Amino acid sequence: MNYPKHFQKLIEALKLLPGVGSKSAERFAFQMIEWKNDRLQEFANIVSTIPLKLMHCENCGCLKGEEDCRLCQPVRGEFGIICIIASPREAFAIEATGEYKGLYHVLGGYLSPIEGIGPNDLKVQSLKDRIAKNNTKEVVIALDSTLEGDVTAFFIKKELENFPLKVTRLAYGLPMGSSLDYVDGSTLSKAFSGRGPL
Amino acid sequence: MNYPKHFQKLIEALKLLPGVGSKSAERFAFQMIEWKNDRLQEFANIVSTIPLKLMHCENCGCLKGEEDCRLCQPVRGEFGIICIIASPREAFAIEATGEYKGLYHVLGGYLSPIEGIGPNDLKVQSLKDRIAKNNTKEVVIALDSTLEGDVTAFFIKKELENFPLKVTRLAYGLPMGSSLDYVDGSTLSKAFSGRGPL
Repeated sequence: MNYPKHFQKLIEALKLLPGVGSKSAERFAFQMIEWKNDRLQEFANIVSTIPLKLMHCENCGCLKGEEDCRLCQPVRGEFGIICIIASPREAFAIEATGEYKGLYHVLGGYLSPIEGIGPNDLKVQSLKDRIAKNNTKEVVIALDSTLEGDVTAFFIKKELENFPLKVTRLAYGLPMGSSLDYVDGSTLSKAFSGRGPL
Repeated sequence: MNYPKHFQKLIEALKLLPGVGSKSAERFAFQMIEWKNDRLQEFANIVSTIPLKLMHCENCGCLKGEEDCRLCQPVRGEFGIICIIASPREAFAIEATGEYKGLYHVLGGYLSPIEGIGPNDLKVQSLKDRIAKNNTKEVVIALDSTLEGDVTAFFIKKELENFPLKVTRLAYGLPMGSSLDYVDGSTLSKAFSGRGPL
């Protein structure tokens, strides 16, 4: 027996969430039909008002609510540093460390010929404009340590070579609390070549 | 830095889904804010119309759409069998086997003193009414093989002892394709005591 049509539509909608397959979507859907009407309406309302209440900051590209972007406050520009991230999500992870107080710039993805993402799909021109405007002394590249991340990092470095600034990248090495026995070879080799004074 | 308020609300709403904790909810939310407006509105619309388009059949308790309940068709009553299930979900699993053609009755849960579910919270009176009305010859109890399932099954059996019908329960035994080495002791012991002619 097939599911009722609306139930099937609900399952298909839930399957759009990342990592949710048919089984999880069915489980979610069976739970949702038990919810009271109030809860369903509130859930629907939160989803439908996302475009009104959440947006990307037109300056840095980070996620912001209806108020001004907290990551673009003037005090953050005083350090003269811009941190380049692929998506708004990374800003929250970096902010949670408390290690960084400067500005962010969301690139919007990684260079990837397979997925058809080329230089024009990344927000490079607006990065250059911001660098010129903000008296920037350093650009920190905080991209994944993957092939796409490496390619994109070198691309950014090349694009910025005419600016009088330092281009740095997050350190590679052993994750904290890791055991040498279990660390993969390429990480260990990066940790060796990047070794520093104790 | 905290998430924008509406984003936090979205995360809290997603955490209501079964098995979804903070990390998954954040992942879902970051994906959803990238969706186009059309998709968000359609998703919200599907959720908000659940109470209008999906309901429990007032007769058997199974899930039904706007059309008549397919599990209450008169032809299914002709076998004189009612299968007792805890929630609407089980009906789909049993229907998928193609083994059963009779009626269903959703009990609405398991007896559980810990969760405060007593005899009055289960749909027993309507079961008795249906048994009397449908000339029922057999009631098949299809409940979980857990402590709550056992207690509930015996409770149903006792409630129905004045009716001239057979009360059966799904067979216990080895799951298909299982290896004796890996089957737990209580399953093996049930499989022994329930052994049948080859």
